[in-house]
Amino acid sequence: MNKYLENVDDDFLYHFGFGLKTVDIPKTFADVKFVCTGGSPTRLKLYAEWFSKECKLDCSDNLSKSDRFVMYKTGPVLWINHGMGTPSLSIMLVEALKLLHHANAKDVKFIRLGTSGGVGVEPGTVVVTTNAMNAELNDKYVQWIGGKKVPKTRPTLSFLPFPNLIALANEKKIPVESGLTMCADDFYEGQMRLDGFFCEYKTEDKFDFLKRIHEKGVRNIEMESTCFASMTFRAGVKAAIVCVTLLNRMKGDQVKIPHDQYIEFEERPFRLVTALIKKYLGIN
Amino acid sequence: MNKYLENVDDDFLYHFGFGLKTVDIPKTFADVKFVCTGGSPTRLKLYAEWFSKECKLDCSDNLSKSDRFVMYKTGPVLWINHGMGTPSLSIMLVEALKLLHHANAKDVKFIRLGTSGGVGVEPGTVVVTTNAMNAELNDKYVQWIGGKKVPKTRPTLSFLPFPNLIALANEKKIPVESGLTMCADDFYEGQMRLDGFFCEYKTEDKFDFLKRIHEKGVRNIEMESTCFASMTFRAGVKAAIVCVTLLNRMKGDQVKIPHDQYIEFEERPFRLVTALIKKYLGIN
Repeated sequence: MNKYLENVDDDFLYHFGFGLKTVDIPKTFADVKFVCTGGSPTRLKLYAEWFSKECKLDCSDNLSKSDRFVMYKTGPVLWINHGMGTPSLSIMLVEALKLLHHANAKDVKFIRLGTSGGVGVEPGTVVVTTNAMNAELNDKYVQWIGGKKVPKTRPTLSFLPFPNLIALANEKKIPVESGLTMCADDFYEGQMRLDGFFCEYKTEDKFDFLKRIHEKGVRNIEMESTCFASMTFRAGVKAAIVCVTLLNRMKGDQVKIPHDQYIEFEERPFRLVTALIKKYLGIN
Repeated sequence: MNKYLENVDDDFLYHFGFGLKTVDIPKTFADVKFVCTGGSPTRLKLYAEWFSKECKLDCSDNLSKSDRFVMYKTGPVLWINHGMGTPSLSIMLVEALKLLHHANAKDVKFIRLGTSGGVGVEPGTVVVTTNAMNAELNDKYVQWIGGKKVPKTRPTLSFLPFPNLIALANEKKIPVESGLTMCADDFYEGQMRLDGFFCEYKTEDKFDFLKRIHEKGVRNIEMESTCFASMTFRAGVKAAIVCVTLLNRMKGDQVKIPHDQYIEFEERPFRLVTALIKKYLGIN
């Protein structure tokens, strides 16, 4: 994808803290088939440990040598967190794609296991994203390069068609919906929360907005989906976004769920994605 | 700033993992006079420890109960990291502003101590930001709220006039420049790096762009300045942005400096800001 990367002597993946000269990248990463990601470093570590236990595969130490991201490997599955928002995610994706390119890994799929605010769905529902919608309310990932808006802004759709995630969720008795995912650029005003430091709109504006996007097919709001869908599409890798909702924004703005329930909700995208990966890799 | 926050029974600061009901916020935070921030959690912890040692003030444990940010307190100075990019920063700023509001803290100043890519300046130079420039190359922080671009996009200037940071840097023998800071939305294409996974422009396009922004007065590029300047301005708090450059983008794209030099570079914004805070608080 980038002719300037051909035959380079070194490539240091700054936000992972290692490069071609410090790690034997093909040896360590050539067998990767799935990259699983999500915002929180602790959650991604937990997912890697759960997956390791469930599939009887060793879990590596944290392979990232920088504090910007964590990275764990369980056999052919890599677990990397991406922080919050599209800028942070874009850095992780670019460096992960470069890593897999240097490793000669083939047919890798990317899955985002996130948390989100539900729009008209019950807390704990796992939303399987059909497409991403940006803050302008269209299906593009907006990039500015060299002072110009990229003329054909990036399309966003790149999703895994097989196996059917909805059927798999039903089989596992995980509450599931599919729909559009709105990608906001902030947690408060960009999602029309009433509990931020700034608030120049009214309660009725918030509900008008939520109803409007619900009618367009939006079922949850998070902060990474357009970039994730667009970059994976552009790189030619299959991807999926599977987020649990922590609240129904039609009923409130604050996330206040007891710790035990939070862990059980966090587990739901993991259970679904693990079932998908096991099927894909033929693990029983 | 937000009438919906008046007389609330509880306010849970989700990304700090505590709220009015779980922590005595006025008792813990009423004395805060400075919030120092930057992207990396490890660096902010290090800064807090250095400051504690230098000023003989106790350093708290990590006060954040969430893994999204870290928070340390050394007397009247709070150290919180903000992750990478404006979306992540906006969450931290909103919750820090709410925290200080609930604490009844007065006259608090915010300082970002960051790392950045230099534009025509030597690596290790500390750039004191005079104003922030967005990826559209104007001095606004662009927000989309309720599907609409905020009509009067936010101004960005809110900087500390006193004491003069440049004079202070000269006094401390820290290499310093002042100038515009460009805020990009990603690390690779948004900054026209040639070493990303994607690259649809040429070497000459990159240098044309860097020359163009240098002529406009840009001396460094990072990923948070517009949001930081704009939100602090809007909240009515004084602020400053002080970033060290890790490379000169006119000469390359990869950050490759030996660990010892990296630590010494990281120390420069800290030394400058510590001198400022000590002057301000009357600490010898």
